[in-house]
Amino acid sequence: MSDPVTAALLVIGDEILSGRTKDKNIGYIAEYLTAIGIDLREVRVVPDIEAEIVTAIRVLKDRYSYLFTTGGIGPTHDDITADCVARACGVPIDHDPRAVAMLRERYVEGDLNEARLRMARIPAGAELIENPISKAPGFQIGNVIVMAGVPSIMQAMLDNVAPRLRTGVRMQVVTLDAGGLPEGIYGTALGEIARLHPGVSIGSYPSFTQGSFRNQIVLRAREAGLLALAEQDVMALLARLRADSAPI
Amino acid sequence: MSDPVTAALLVIGDEILSGRTKDKNIGYIAEYLTAIGIDLREVRVVPDIEAEIVTAIRVLKDRYSYLFTTGGIGPTHDDITADCVARACGVPIDHDPRAVAMLRERYVEGDLNEARLRMARIPAGAELIENPISKAPGFQIGNVIVMAGVPSIMQAMLDNVAPRLRTGVRMQVVTLDAGGLPEGIYGTALGEIARLHPGVSIGSYPSFTQGSFRNQIVLRAREAGLLALAEQDVMALLARLRADSAPI
Repeated sequence: MSDPVTAALLVIGDEILSGRTKDKNIGYIAEYLTAIGIDLREVRVVPDIEAEIVTAIRVLKDRYSYLFTTGGIGPTHDDITADCVARACGVPIDHDPRAVAMLRERYVEGDLNEARLRMARIPAGAELIENPISKAPGFQIGNVIVMAGVPSIMQAMLDNVAPRLRTGVRMQVVTLDAGGLPEGIYGTALGEIARLHPGVSIGSYPSFTQGSFRNQIVLRAREAGLLALAEQDVMALLARLRADSAPI
Repeated sequence: MSDPVTAALLVIGDEILSGRTKDKNIGYIAEYLTAIGIDLREVRVVPDIEAEIVTAIRVLKDRYSYLFTTGGIGPTHDDITADCVARACGVPIDHDPRAVAMLRERYVEGDLNEARLRMARIPAGAELIENPISKAPGFQIGNVIVMAGVPSIMQAMLDNVAPRLRTGVRMQVVTLDAGGLPEGIYGTALGEIARLHPGVSIGSYPSFTQGSFRNQIVLRAREAGLLALAEQDVMALLARLRADSAPI
């Protein structure tokens, strides 16, 4: 089996850290990458500070198959992502004629001012990622994929870039509802099952609504056979515990 | 003026990285800390892997005034946060009699089994954080604050621990609506204003709904006087641009 394809996500922006803007991209990208067979292994959120962004890009791009970034590619002074990526990758950055051409589709000559041209600053050697909504492109340089922070634009860019990406064997998932069984009742035995099935990742997830917990057990594996064996064991455990707890 | 009080947040859990669970804690904690005068400077999301969690705790606790964590303190085998915190802090961990007493409020003797007692494993020297909902406590050791991942429980724990925290001068915020003005029109001039007011953090935030952008300019500073001066300049800029773009 080939190595898993991994990714990190770097969310760039003071507004997420101040709580002013509630991020909607992490969950979307996590689900999207999982579905196409890329394992999201780490997320970081950093402020609009060059040193912080550059350091995070360097660490994450070296550690994972891909690094995705969101935010900081607009026309204002706090949009510094492209410059930070260029610096982290050690390449020059300048107005890219292909990106300028894209902006000309949206702006007439006189309106394409200095601020808007900022959105055409692209690190040397990058491939552009089209933006069907507002034209200013994202880009990919090496394994770093730079996207907008506005969710609808990010989503369009992700659709655009996804077909170019290397993907791995898709993780297969089984979700079992623990019904009314509390985690504390099955916790120890579930841990034993997890130890017996090292090729399967087993998690237990409580949610708390209307005054009571409802738990789900999630099994994840790349090999269907391994997954099925672990699933049998968990199903048998739940059946046994339900029988034990049923009124006589 | 005293140094700002800073924080990082470490979100622990495979389910966030797979997209199965959409995190609701980052935005809540960001807004909460901002409101009480603590600057959230970085967020990381890591999987349920001991080495990843321990490394992130070590790096983040040394770098910021506080490190908050969410997730991984339940009764199942994938709940390894408390053990990772103990390891990162270099202290032993065992069942804490105070935590066991809290669990006894919820579970009768026979129901307090091995799995549930796992939730009473607390690193030596930690202070407990009460959990009014399901009793299993969070804890604080040094500057590391460990909370549940279930949002309602995390929120109760944050209310519980907040009065103990050192807080700084609260960031003051002014939000100006750019009205119909596009970022590309005011971007360059806003950057000049940002350079003239180094004590004020100025951001421009587009949102894209119903086919058009709506922009807000947010000014943040700890000193009201500095904030007011920057606000005057931005207001004057917006008024000038609106007059320029008005039909004659």
